[in-house]
Amino acid sequence: MFIESIEESKKNFKISDKIEIFDTTLRDGEQSPGVALTVDEKIQIAQKLDNIGVNTIEIGFPAVSEGERQSAREIAKLNPKANLCGLARVIPADIDALLMSDLNYVHTFIGSSPLHREYKLKMSKEKVLEKAVTAVEYCKDHGLTVEFSGEDATRTEIDYLIELYKAVEDAGADKINVPDTVGVLYPAATKTLIETLKREIKIPISVHCHNDFGLAVANSLSAIEAGAQQAHVTINGIGERGGNASLEEFVVSLKVAYGIDLDIDTTQLYNLSDYVSKVTGIKMPPNKPIVGENAFAHESGIHVDGILKNAATYEPIPPELVGHSRKIALGKHTGASGLRSKLKDYNINLDEDQFCNVYDEIKKLGDKGKTVTDADLKAIAVTVLGKVKEENIKLLGLTVVSGDSVSATATVKLEIDGKAKETSKTGVGPVDAALKAIQDLVKDTIAIKLEEYNIEAITGGTDALAEVFVIISDDLGNLSTGRATKDDVIMASVEAIINSLNKILFIREK
Amino acid sequence: MFIESIEESKKNFKISDKIEIFDTTLRDGEQSPGVALTVDEKIQIAQKLDNIGVNTIEIGFPAVSEGERQSAREIAKLNPKANLCGLARVIPADIDALLMSDLNYVHTFIGSSPLHREYKLKMSKEKVLEKAVTAVEYCKDHGLTVEFSGEDATRTEIDYLIELYKAVEDAGADKINVPDTVGVLYPAATKTLIETLKREIKIPISVHCHNDFGLAVANSLSAIEAGAQQAHVTINGIGERGGNASLEEFVVSLKVAYGIDLDIDTTQLYNLSDYVSKVTGIKMPPNKPIVGENAFAHESGIHVDGILKNAATYEPIPPELVGHSRKIALGKHTGASGLRSKLKDYNINLDEDQFCNVYDEIKKLGDKGKTVTDADLKAIAVTVLGKVKEENIKLLGLTVVSGDSVSATATVKLEIDGKAKETSKTGVGPVDAALKAIQDLVKDTIAIKLEEYNIEAITGGTDALAEVFVIISDDLGNLSTGRATKDDVIMASVEAIINSLNKILFIREK
Repeated sequence: MFIESIEESKKNFKISDKIEIFDTTLRDGEQSPGVALTVDEKIQIAQKLDNIGVNTIEIGFPAVSEGERQSAREIAKLNPKANLCGLARVIPADIDALLMSDLNYVHTFIGSSPLHREYKLKMSKEKVLEKAVTAVEYCKDHGLTVEFSGEDATRTEIDYLIELYKAVEDAGADKINVPDTVGVLYPAATKTLIETLKREIKIPISVHCHNDFGLAVANSLSAIEAGAQQAHVTINGIGERGGNASLEEFVVSLKVAYGIDLDIDTTQLYNLSDYVSKVTGIKMPPNKPIVGENAFAHESGIHVDGILKNAATYEPIPPELVGHSRKIALGKHTGASGLRSKLKDYNINLDEDQFCNVYDEIKKLGDKGKTVTDADLKAIAVTVLGKVKEENIKLLGLTVVSGDSVSATATVKLEIDGKAKETSKTGVGPVDAALKAIQDLVKDTIAIKLEEYNIEAITGGTDALAEVFVIISDDLGNLSTGRATKDDVIMASVEAIINSLNKILFIREK
Repeated sequence: MFIESIEESKKNFKISDKIEIFDTTLRDGEQSPGVALTVDEKIQIAQKLDNIGVNTIEIGFPAVSEGERQSAREIAKLNPKANLCGLARVIPADIDALLMSDLNYVHTFIGSSPLHREYKLKMSKEKVLEKAVTAVEYCKDHGLTVEFSGEDATRTEIDYLIELYKAVEDAGADKINVPDTVGVLYPAATKTLIETLKREIKIPISVHCHNDFGLAVANSLSAIEAGAQQAHVTINGIGERGGNASLEEFVVSLKVAYGIDLDIDTTQLYNLSDYVSKVTGIKMPPNKPIVGENAFAHESGIHVDGILKNAATYEPIPPELVGHSRKIALGKHTGASGLRSKLKDYNINLDEDQFCNVYDEIKKLGDKGKTVTDADLKAIAVTVLGKVKEENIKLLGLTVVSGDSVSATATVKLEIDGKAKETSKTGVGPVDAALKAIQDLVKDTIAIKLEEYNIEAITGGTDALAEVFVIISDDLGNLSTGRATKDDVIMASVEAIINSLNKILFIREK
């Protein structure tokens, strides 16, 4: 992609030919309130980070607990290509804890800004510098690769910051890191700061940008423009408060916008983001760049029309580059091209009247704010194609009994093609029992399997409405969805299942 | 806040003294797949946007449907201070639809990049320019304020882009907008582009940045540095794919980092974000800058210690500035200062042994990945303070009956202080019935009210584990939590309620 403003802007850059990725998902990312990873989860993440090719993995803060040191040692056993780094304050106890953790790399820090010196540490500039130098020397004496951070560097007086960094450089540090601890810089200021430091410091410079104003990735990129050789990043940008620079956004920006390829396997980014979401419980929103569910989803008529003609019209990169996939969503903003393309995918041929009917139904569901799934579309199309029929299966009666000393039992009475049938089944709970009874009652007509059962999270009282969404399949591989909303979660579940059953019977008849 | 790198970087800026906010939450934001707002929700959002002081509200795309025009007219009735804008392609039908919608401002656009001209529009450069000029003239003839976008401007040949923008300027356009339609620029390139355009165009320049690489806010800020007078933004950064520039990040960055105050009431940002999340269904993650639940939350020992000494050590702005609040979270990374501060807040005095016991319990809960709530802390502290007692209330028996033709009925047998008691109650569903029975059984001991009832979303089969979390209150205003996980959602609910009951009894006894 040739873009004149990009080429023009590059004239002022001083980009290093060696840029490294320092991932701190397991340290700063894990510090997110409410996040706690097990040793096994830490090992899994470290392995995946090593697989995609990051240069350094900060595995945690060994001084925190024996559990933290244990997970460090377990990760070291993976024998990764990446450096394994631990965090340590500039105090011997922290460094000793790190030395017991089979790590070869230390990230040591002390607050350097007036705020941190005066309020948090209650130390003079001289004292802070002395402690930093002593710690770096101690680390080097023990054979560690040393990266030193002046915490809150971006709010530190520039002359003192240079003095501090020069002193640790002289003490043998291998790299200095510049943390924008509370995320107050913007890109142009980051560039100015790194240019200033580059004139004074010979060892490589790294940045660690926080995202309080949403600028962490942009600030990290600006630092690279000014000659920084490393950025600290996390998967999904998780970390303290608004988080850190996101690995996936930083790496893809560099690769695509700047044309700088870091030898990171970007095709694993979607899976890696998804795994980290699951184990941390921090879900990314659909509009998360690169890895969000909508990052390559298109619903509005104009966009879908463009995408179908040439995906590059409305996508900056092909989704495969990051292991994601394109999605044409149906909903309120769907245009005719999008719907025709979907129908064609499923080999559903409609005349113009039928097409308009399906289009109207989709718009109606969309107007209610529902995402129209592919299974919804098939069910709607088949209903429009067939004669509008009575429901084949109706619920005539339901009774459930459950408790701590009786097996959950459901008695279900259905009308199937005009005939009433009844049975009782037991299950692990009343919903499970009701499902088993329904499966038994319809078994001469259709063999169904529950593929997915969702209760939307209920918040409110015990009388709040429960929304149940199910997907069922039959023996021919058809899929169908069902939905129901009730104040009783059991009734909602049973109605959703019967709703999906009627739809799948329509689909089979076609 | 004086930061040398920020002051230094400002020397090259050409910032206009009039910068406007153009909000497109209701247009580009609503185009997010799966989002559909009702007329009433659109009115509410427009009112809130007008209240905080945005300059222009893009209310939608009137050509899409009569519903869209209806909501425009309803919003116009609010008589807002903000301009009300609608989107229109450069075709008469779109502009006519807008004229029927009581709007005074049009945002009209046509694809200008080679990709859009050749694949989507199949038009020559000359044809695109001719249609743009004709549309602008038509809009001006009808008395509209006109903002013109060359769609995909950032991938358009610069010479042609200038030619197109000059032509619409000559045709009477009031403003040109530069959309980075697929979010491919980075800040330095955006600055270069806007500087180039500023040399050629006299009318104000706006930018519309997409967030595909996570750079939308930074790009918008760079445009402002180069003299752009407006940015298109959305609440929560929602919009096509990775979304648009986030209003809250853009406004707060300008105010705090650049020192440019736009006369936007930032204290409403948290509430506005929350409202938009609710009605769009697009939840922000805890690490969303400015408005996320963790934006001002602190758990790790070092950070909490700093915050308690001076909040500015680990916060770039006070949370009140954006209507948010600070949260000291308890969990795996909690340090002693954080815990002592929390206990002090609740007037709980512990000796050192008791303190260590509470600390261990909190760490244990945190290690399981649980966020430790304030109610959890109180219950733990009170348990440690008191003798470890038997549970006052035990479940001896539970039977529920439910169905479509019987009222949901629960029979509950409890042991209360050693005595067995049993009762039956009906409710809207079996959980509601069980709660009523429990309330009745304990009414001589305690009057409880259910404050919150959460079923975590269940995905899987009908036999998947359900996790229920409740908060109850008593007549003295005490709060307590309860949790339970079971394969039967009814049993899980009842156990969670009884668990919370036992905790609240401990709290009362103290």
